[in-house]
Amino acid sequence: MSHNSFGHVFRVTTWGESHGPAIGCVVDGVPPGLRLSEPDIQTWLDRRKPGSSRFVTQRREPDQVEILSGVFDGRTTGTPVSLMIRNQDARSRDYSAIKNLFRPGHADYTYWKKYGLRDYRGGGRASARETACRVAAGGIARKILGRGVRIRGAMVQMGELAVDRSRWSWAETGRNPFWCPDSRIAKTWESYLDEVRREGNSIGAVIEIVASGVPAGLGAPVYGKLDSDLAGALMGINAVKGVEIGAGFGAAALTGEANADEMRMQDGEVGFLSNHAGGILGGISTGQDVVVRFAVKPTSSIATPRRTVTTRGRDADIATRGRHDPCVGIRGVPVGEAMVACVLADHLLRHRAQCG
Amino acid sequence: MSHNSFGHVFRVTTWGESHGPAIGCVVDGVPPGLRLSEPDIQTWLDRRKPGSSRFVTQRREPDQVEILSGVFDGRTTGTPVSLMIRNQDARSRDYSAIKNLFRPGHADYTYWKKYGLRDYRGGGRASARETACRVAAGGIARKILGRGVRIRGAMVQMGELAVDRSRWSWAETGRNPFWCPDSRIAKTWESYLDEVRREGNSIGAVIEIVASGVPAGLGAPVYGKLDSDLAGALMGINAVKGVEIGAGFGAAALTGEANADEMRMQDGEVGFLSNHAGGILGGISTGQDVVVRFAVKPTSSIATPRRTVTTRGRDADIATRGRHDPCVGIRGVPVGEAMVACVLADHLLRHRAQCG
Amino acid sequence: MSHNSFGHVFRVTTWGESHGPAIGCVVDGVPPGLRLSEPDIQTWLDRRKPGSSRFVTQRREPDQVEILSGVFDGRTTGTPVSLMIRNQDARSRDYSAIKNLFRPGHADYTYWKKYGLRDYRGGGRASARETACRVAAGGIARKILGRGVRIRGAMVQMGELAVDRSRWSWAETGRNPFWCPDSRIAKTWESYLDEVRREGNSIGAVIEIVASGVPAGLGAPVYGKLDSDLAGALMGINAVKGVEIGAGFGAAALTGEANADEMRMQDGEVGFLSNHAGGILGGISTGQDVVVRFAVKPTSSIATPRRTVTTRGRDADIATRGRHDPCVGIRGVPVGEAMVACVLADHLLRHRAQCG
Amino acid sequence: MSHNSFGHVFRVTTWGESHGPAIGCVVDGVPPGLRLSEPDIQTWLDRRKPGSSRFVTQRREPDQVEILSGVFDGRTTGTPVSLMIRNQDARSRDYSAIKNLFRPGHADYTYWKKYGLRDYRGGGRASARETACRVAAGGIARKILGRGVRIRGAMVQMGELAVDRSRWSWAETGRNPFWCPDSRIAKTWESYLDEVRREGNSIGAVIEIVASGVPAGLGAPVYGKLDSDLAGALMGINAVKGVEIGAGFGAAALTGEANADEMRMQDGEVGFLSNHAGGILGGISTGQDVVVRFAVKPTSSIATPRRTVTTRGRDADIATRGRHDPCVGIRGVPVGEAMVACVLADHLLRHRAQCG
Repeated sequence: MSHNSFGHVFRVTTWGESHGPAIGCVVDGVPPGLRLSEPDIQTWLDRRKPGSSRFVTQRREPDQVEILSGVFDGRTTGTPVSLMIRNQDARSRDYSAIKNLFRPGHADYTYWKKYGLRDYRGGGRASARETACRVAAGGIARKILGRGVRIRGAMVQMGELAVDRSRWSWAETGRNPFWCPDSRIAKTWESYLDEVRREGNSIGAVIEIVASGVPAGLGAPVYGKLDSDLAGALMGINAVKGVEIGAGFGAAALTGEANADEMRMQDGEVGFLSNHAGGILGGISTGQDVVVRFAVKPTSSIATPRRTVTTRGRDADIATRGRHDPCVGIRGVPVGEAMVACVLADHLLRHRAQCG
Repeated sequence: MSHNSFGHVFRVTTWGESHGPAIGCVVDGVPPGLRLSEPDIQTWLDRRKPGSSRFVTQRREPDQVEILSGVFDGRTTGTPVSLMIRNQDARSRDYSAIKNLFRPGHADYTYWKKYGLRDYRGGGRASARETACRVAAGGIARKILGRGVRIRGAMVQMGELAVDRSRWSWAETGRNPFWCPDSRIAKTWESYLDEVRREGNSIGAVIEIVASGVPAGLGAPVYGKLDSDLAGALMGINAVKGVEIGAGFGAAALTGEANADEMRMQDGEVGFLSNHAGGILGGISTGQDVVVRFAVKPTSSIATPRRTVTTRGRDADIATRGRHDPCVGIRGVPVGEAMVACVLADHLLRHRAQCG
Repeated sequence: MSHNSFGHVFRVTTWGESHGPAIGCVVDGVPPGLRLSEPDIQTWLDRRKPGSSRFVTQRREPDQVEILSGVFDGRTTGTPVSLMIRNQDARSRDYSAIKNLFRPGHADYTYWKKYGLRDYRGGGRASARETACRVAAGGIARKILGRGVRIRGAMVQMGELAVDRSRWSWAETGRNPFWCPDSRIAKTWESYLDEVRREGNSIGAVIEIVASGVPAGLGAPVYGKLDSDLAGALMGINAVKGVEIGAGFGAAALTGEANADEMRMQDGEVGFLSNHAGGILGGISTGQDVVVRFAVKPTSSIATPRRTVTTRGRDADIATRGRHDPCVGIRGVPVGEAMVACVLADHLLRHRAQCG
Repeated sequence: MSHNSFGHVFRVTTWGESHGPAIGCVVDGVPPGLRLSEPDIQTWLDRRKPGSSRFVTQRREPDQVEILSGVFDGRTTGTPVSLMIRNQDARSRDYSAIKNLFRPGHADYTYWKKYGLRDYRGGGRASARETACRVAAGGIARKILGRGVRIRGAMVQMGELAVDRSRWSWAETGRNPFWCPDSRIAKTWESYLDEVRREGNSIGAVIEIVASGVPAGLGAPVYGKLDSDLAGALMGINAVKGVEIGAGFGAAALTGEANADEMRMQDGEVGFLSNHAGGILGGISTGQDVVVRFAVKPTSSIATPRRTVTTRGRDADIATRGRHDPCVGIRGVPVGEAMVACVLADHLLRHRAQCG
C-alpha cells in the first residue's frame, strides 16, 4: 500500500510540493536495456509546461528534468529511475494572504481536517504541479510500450462547446493551444476563453485519450481490470470529476442490440464492426483503440469573491489573485496521455508476468 | 499486487466461476470484536439475489452465505473472514452451444486472447455472479463503518428515461423492482422494460450511490485519493462504462463561479452551500454526502442474432438463449453500494493507520 | 498490504482456524494452461499429514484438498485457484480447559493483547494446521517452476544431534520418519525422540532445503531480494526462530579469502568452485543450488507443568494434554519446501514481468 | 509490488547508484505533525558514515542529507518525505579495470545474468552505499516510534571471536570503533582487524539489535508476522547471510521445557521469566525486548587474487584495489538498527489501522 504510488510492476512514486525546492518521482520496474536520456522525457514535459500560451498559468517554470539514477551509458539498468524537477518560480508571497482561509473547490479544508496542518503555499502537495511527475513517468512508459502503441489526447469539449467529430483531425491538435482536433471550434474556444479569463472566471472541459496499437489481452478479469485501473488513474488527476470508456454514459441509453460490437473475420484477422466497448471487454483489451474520456472541473481559483470560512471558524470572502489557468483542462491533455501510458505499460508487464 | 483483490487494509480477495461448485471471498483486515453472523451478510445478498422479479435473471440461486473462518463466539477475531456461496442452479448445458463462439460484448474473446483457453460455462469468472462476493464483503464493510455511515443506491436512469429529481424519495426505492426513487417514472420503466424483455433485447442504466455520514478526512492527496479508488472500484463492476462524482461530466459545462461550493459557518460548524464536489476535494472527503454515479451498459446477452466469429476463425451468428437480465443495471444497485462501502471501510482504516 | 497473503505475482492468501469448519487458500496469478488436478496437490499434503508416524500429532485429519475454482477441463484458467481442506477431527473439548490460560511459547497472550479476544480452540489461526495451505499452494508453485527445478528438504539436526554430511543421501530422506539424509543418525534420533515423547517433553530441530535447477537471474537488487523473501517466508513458518542461507552464520567466522566462491569456465559455462553464497549473490540467484536452513523451536505444548497467568491476571500452572508433535520440526520439512517453492515461483514470474 | 520499496503503511522507496549524482529515498505514510528537520536524520547518518575510523572504507562522503518535501514549518505534513544525499567522492576510475570481470562474492555476475548489462562503477545499485538511505529512513521511523521505544545495536562476534555477555555494557558500544559492548574483546578485535586489513583480507561478523519498549500486540498471525518482516528486512541488508530471533538457532538444541518462557504476575503486570522468544510469539510482540541477530559475511572485495571469469567467458584473476571495509559488519550496526526501526514503525501503524 502506498498513498503516493501507482502501478504495480511499472510503479511510480511521486513526491514534492508546489513551493518546495523540487518535485520528483521514482520509477521502479523499468525493463533493462531501454535507451533513455533526459530529452526523451523533456519532450513530453514541454507539452505540459506552464506559460506556453495566454490560456495557461503564467508561472515560469522551465520544468527541466534530471535523471538521478537507473540509467547507465544511455540505457536503463533495471534499477529505479529517479527523476527530479526543480521548482524555480515559486512566489510564496502570493499565498500568505490565504494562509488561514479555505479556498472553495481546493483541498485546503480537507487537508486541514485530515492532517491538522497544511503547506498552504501554492496548494502544497495538491498543486497541479505534481502532474509534471506523471508526465515524466509517462515518457518512460511510452518507451516500454514501444512505437507500436500510440497514445494521443484531445480536448473535445470546453464548457458547453463540443467538437464536431466529423471534423476530427489529429494533426490539428498540435496547431492550437487547446489540443483541439476541430479547427473551427478551436477558434470559437479562443474567443470564449479570452472572455472567461477577462472576467476572472474559469471553465470546465472534457478530454479524450485514444491509445492505438494496444495488443489484445492486457488487463484481468476482476479487480485488476484494465478499465478499472484506467478509471482510477484518470480520476486521480487533479480536478477530474468523471471518467468514461467507449460509449461511456451514452451506453446507458443504448439497447443491447445497438451496443453490441459485432465481429467478422477481416483479412484472416478477427475484426470488430464498431467500438462501443472502447477497446476493453471484461476488463481485458480487445486490440481495438482504447478510448477514454474524462471531465475536468473549472479551475477553482477565480477572481470573483466567493464565500468561505477561516481556519478559526469565522466567515470570510476570498478572491484568488495568483497565476492560474482559466481552463485547467488544457494542461490535462498531456497528463491524461501520461496516465494512460503508465497504466498500459504496467499492464503489459503484468500480463507478461502471468502469461509469458 | 493481486488481480483478484481490492482494498489495502480492508482487503477482499474473490474467487470462483459461474458454474463451478462455489464462489467465495476472503476478507482480510477486519477489526476484531465486531458482532458478525451469517444473517448480517445474508440481508445484503438477498437484495442482489437472482429471481426476485421478472426483470432479473430467472436463474434460481438461494445465494446462501457460509462463514468459514474469522468469527468466534459471534465476533470477528481479526483473522481472515472466509465466505462461501455454493452454486446450485448451474445449468451448464445452456452454454455448450457457445463453446466455440465469441459472444459480442462479453469477455469471451478477450479471455481467449489473454489465456489461450476459457471456462465458457456461464461466462466463467466474468459472470456477474462474482458480484455476490462483493455484496457479501460490503456487508462486513458496513459493520466497520458503523451506523453513522449510511450508503444507499438508486437507479436514476433507464435507457433515455431519467428520474425527476424533484420527486426523489429514498423510501420509494424499496417499493419497486428497480430501486427507483421516483414512483412515477418507475411505472413507465415497468412497461418499457416489459417491452424490451419481450423483444429479447436489453437496455442500459445509470445508478447513483450516496454515502451519508462519511467523516471528513478520508482519502489521500495523490494516488490514494478517495475519488480515484471509488472510480476504480465502480468501473470494475461488470458492464460499467462510466463513473462520475458530484457534478461529474456536468462540471465540464460549469464556470468556476457556478461550480464553487461556498462555505459558511453553520451552528458553529463548517457548512457547504452546495455539493458539486460530491463530498470529495483533493481526493479527501469533506464530510458532505459522497455522491457517485455509474453507467451500466445493456446486457450483452440478447435474443436478437448478432454477427460474430468462432474460435477457429469463421464467421457465425449468435443469439443467446440463457437466463439473463434485460437490464443488468438493476442488480448493479446493491453491488455499487457494496463497492462504495468497501472503499470507505478501507479508507477509514487507512486514515487511522497514518493519522491515528 | 495483506496480513494473510504472501507473494506478489504468484500470490497466496490463506484463511481458517484449527477448529473451524475448514481451512483453505486462494492462489492468484497462476499462469493459464497448466495441468492441475487434486492429486497433484494431494501428493504433497500427504507428506505433511498428521498421524503418519508416532512422532507426529495423532490428530486424524485426512487433509483432503478440494479445488473450488480456477481449473477447467484439467487445466488452470489464469483465474484464482481456491483450495479448501475440511477440518474433521477437531476435538474442541481438548481445549476448553485452557480457555482462560496463556500457554507459554504459544500465541495465546499476544493474540489476546492484540485483538482483545481469541479463538482458543487448538490455537485457532496460530495452529500449525494453517501450514497445510502452504503445502497445497507449494504444489501449484512446483507446477509453475516445472520439472527443471527440484526442491528437496531434510532435517539436519534434532536437538544437539546433527547429521554427518559425508553420509548425506537424498534417497534416505524418504525412508525414515524424520526426512533424515543420514541413516545412522536417524536411528539415534528415533530412540532419542521416543524418550523425549515419553517424558512429555519436546525438542527443536534444523531443516535444510535445497533447490536445484533454479535459473540465474531471479530476485532483485534491493528490497525484492530473493534471499530477503526466502528469509521472510521461512521465518513466517510457525515455531521458526532462525534462517540462514549458504554458509549462513558460519560466514561470520570466515575470511574474505575463504568465503569467496571463485569462478572458472567449465565446458563453456560459468562455473563456481564453491557455494558459500547458497546460490544467491546481491539478492539474485546465481544458477547454483539455492541452500537455506531454518531452526525450529521445540513444540511449546508439553506435559510438564509450566508457570503462567490467567486472562484475569492470576498466577497459574499449565500442562498441555492435547495431541501434539514431540518435534514439530519434522512436519516443518514439507512446509519449508513449499515456502521455497512459492517464493521461487513468484520470483520467476516477477522476473519475467520486468525482464521478459 | 515494488522491488525497491519496503514497508506497507510506513513505506520506504530507495533509489540511486554508488557512482551516480546522488542516492535518496521517498518515505511515505509518515504521520503528520512530527517535528522533523535535517539534523534529526543526520545524527543517524553520521554513525554509518564512511571514513570514521581506519576500520571502514576511506571513501570520503559527508553523507549530508537534504529534505526535499513533506516537511513544512518544521513538521511533517503527512505527504511523502523525499530525502537526497549527493555522492561526492565517487572515483569511477577505480572501477574501470573490473568492467569486464565478475568479482566473486559480488552481484556482478547475477546483475549481468538478470539485466544483460550493469553499472559496474562501485557496485552500482548493489553498493553498500544504498544503506545510507535505510539509515535516513530509520531516523524518521524512530520519530514515529517515539522516545518510549529504544533501538540499540552491537557487534557481538568478529570472525570466531565472540563477546563475553557477562561483560555487556551498552555504554561501551559508543567508545570503540566496533559498536562492541565488551571493552575487553574490543581490544582484541582491534589488533585482529589490523592484521586482517594489512593482509588485504576481510572478516565476517554477527550483529545484535535490541528494541526495548515495543508495545505488546504488534505483528500479525500469519504472513504479516513481525518476525517474518524483521527477517526479510535484515536478510535484505547487503552481505547478510543469516538472521535469528531470541534463542534463534540455539532453540533447535533446546527442549520444550527449557525453551518455555514462563509467565508470572509482577506488580500487577504480566511478566515473563525468560526471553527465548526474543519478544515475539506467534508473529506478535509480547512487550519484552525484541532481540534479533544477523550474520554478515566478510567483505568480498579483497586484495588477494581470486579466480574468476570475464564477461566474454574467459578465465581471469582479480584482486580488488578500491577503498573497502575490512569488516563490513561494523557499518552493519546502524543499518540493522534502522531496518528494525522501520519494521517496527510500519507495524505500529498497521496495528493502529486494524485494531484502532
